[in-house]
Parts: sequence; structure tokens; C-alpha cells
Amino acid sequence: MRRVALMLVAGFLLSGFTAYLASASAQAENGGGQVSGIKIPPGYRDWRLISVAHEEGKLNDLRAILGNDIAFNTAREGRLPYPDGSIIARLAWSYDPLPESAKAFGHLQSYVAGPPINGVQFMIKDSKKYGSTSGWAFVQFNNGNPVNVAMPGSCFSCHETVEARDFVFSRYAP
Amino acid sequence: MRRVALMLVAGFLLSGFTAYLASASAQAENGGGQVSGIKIPPGYRDWRLISVAHEEGKLNDLRAILGNDIAFNTAREGRLPYPDGSIIARLAWSYDPLPESAKAFGHLQSYVAGPPINGVQFMIKDSKKYGSTSGWAFVQFNNGNPVNVAMPGSCFSCHETVEARDFVFSRYAP
Repeated sequence: MRRVALMLVAGFLLSGFTAYLASASAQAENGGGQVSGIKIPPGYRDWRLISVAHEEGKLNDLRAILGNDIAFNTAREGRLPYPDGSIIARLAWSYDPLPESAKAFGHLQSYVAGPPINGVQFMIKDSKKYGSTSGWAFVQFNNGNPVNVAMPGSCFSCHETVEARDFVFSRYAP
Repeated sequence: MRRVALMLVAGFLLSGFTAYLASASAQAENGGGQVSGIKIPPGYRDWRLISVAHEEGKLNDLRAILGNDIAFNTAREGRLPYPDGSIIARLAWSYDPLPESAKAFGHLQSYVAGPPINGVQFMIKDSKKYGSTSGWAFVQFNNGNPVNVAMPGSCFSCHETVEARDFVFSRYAP
């Protein structure tokens, strides 16, 4: 039962951010309203791991979904919706073959995280501040700088499809 | 410079454990010496993330490499070799397509962590206790129970190929 509960949890931007990325420049050019004043959450690389994923296609990355304490505990315990103060981070790295593995086994089978790519993205829960997007802000930083992306629309349009999981794609990986 | 330093770090069992798994049952049947008395490290799922990976082939998983504070900080700061007390954990989950992503994009491109598979594995550094394998013990737990695996040989034979990284395959993913 606990396993089932654990598997019914969390979530994130696995594919939603593809649309986000694709539409970001276009919307920025249109001068649409953006989430302003959000700074990169300090210490996010120390947060605990919610889950991992691989994106094929243009993104072609390995990614990790981390959560601050509020988000991580919510994901692990399956207590949706995420409370205000929850922050979920999506890190991504290039999808690199591991030569040492190929050498050891005589064939390539291991892919590992290379340099960071595709920016660092965050979902930030504040039900009052971001009420128009069901309580979530979606932001991205490239090399530590915020990306000028219009909201809502870009990310949210995909995340709306997982409303039952409080708009978060990823589930906690036990 | 810091980026370079970060990329020259850590490591783990990405492929070494394939051999480990393959040889585990055979060696157990042979009654070879095993690492005994090692219990599953408490709280390892709360440890911080060193890196992520994907294994193709029979393993076919998504995996995360976590480290206890000693191992994580060593990996991040690039201060090899790992000091005694370092523990590195390898978790793995089935490599599952994400239907919601396929639905949103009209094609499959996202793979996420499904149920846990391939056990949970640990590298434990104790230069005196495990001197015969360069200071590392290699252990695996299936459903919380230690797997009866002969040491050294199985894991170590592959990990020997990355002696320059203190026998750890994975590098810290910044």
C-alpha cells in the first residue's frame, strides 16, 4: 500500500518544459507578461532527489528532479497538493556515453550525465501569488540568469494535463 | 576552472555492477568469501545526488548515484581519494515511457523512473577493513536483504579500470 502511495505522488516538467523552451523566445519577443523578481533558489543543488528521467529528441538529456524539504516530503509522503513554499527543481545534463563502460564490456551500454544543458528550471508554489496558474510559477535560469519567458501559457499549458497530480509530472522514485 | 574541477570528480558502479550482477549468483553458488555484516545504510534515500545515468541492455534502468555527506562533498569538491567513511549508493528504477508526455507532444520522448529494480548497491570506504579491494567494499541489497556475493573479483575487476578516479565511475554532475 505504501509503495502504491509512493508511486502516486510528485511530479514535474518532464515534457512540459519542452513546449516551454520552444515557446520561450517567441513569447519573450512578444513582450508577454513574465514572472519577474524570482531569484535562483540558493542551495538547490543540495536538495534531495525526487526522481530521474531521460528526454530524447532535441532535449537529449539526463535529468534529476530535486525538491526543497517541503516539496520532497510532500512528494515522498504523497500528501498532494503541494503546500505553499514547495519548490521543485529540474536539472539536466547532456546524455553522454561512458567510454570506460564500453571498454570494460566490449559494447556501449552506459549513458551518464555530462555538462549541464537546457538550463535549470523551477516550479514554485505560492497559491496567492501565482493563482492564475493554479498556484505554480514556472521559471528557468540559464547560466544563473533568469530566462525572459511569458507566463502563463508556455509551461502551464502542458502541466494542466496532470492537474490530478497538482500539475507535477514526476512521481517520487522510492 | 571550478567547472573543470567539478567534472573531474567522483564516480560509481555504472557498468562495473553489470558484471557484479552477472557473476553474483555464480559466485554465491561457489560459496566464495563474501562481505559479511554490512547492513543497509540507514537514511540513504535522503542523501544528496552525485549524478544520474541510464543503463541499456539487460539492466535497462534509470539510476541515481547518491552520496553520504563525506562522499558527496568529496565528489563535489574533487578531493580524491575518498576518505574512510565515504558511502556511495546506486539506486535504480525501471526505464519507463511517460504516457502523459507522449499524449502532450504527439510522440514519445520522455522516460521516467518506474518501480525500483536491480537492487540497491553501495560502495563503502574503509581502507583498513577492505584493503584487499583498495579500500572499498561493494555490497548489494535486494528488497532490503544483502545479496550473497563473493568479494573481491565481481565488482572490483571492473572498478579497477578507473583507479585514477579512486575506483568510482561516476563524476559529480554540477
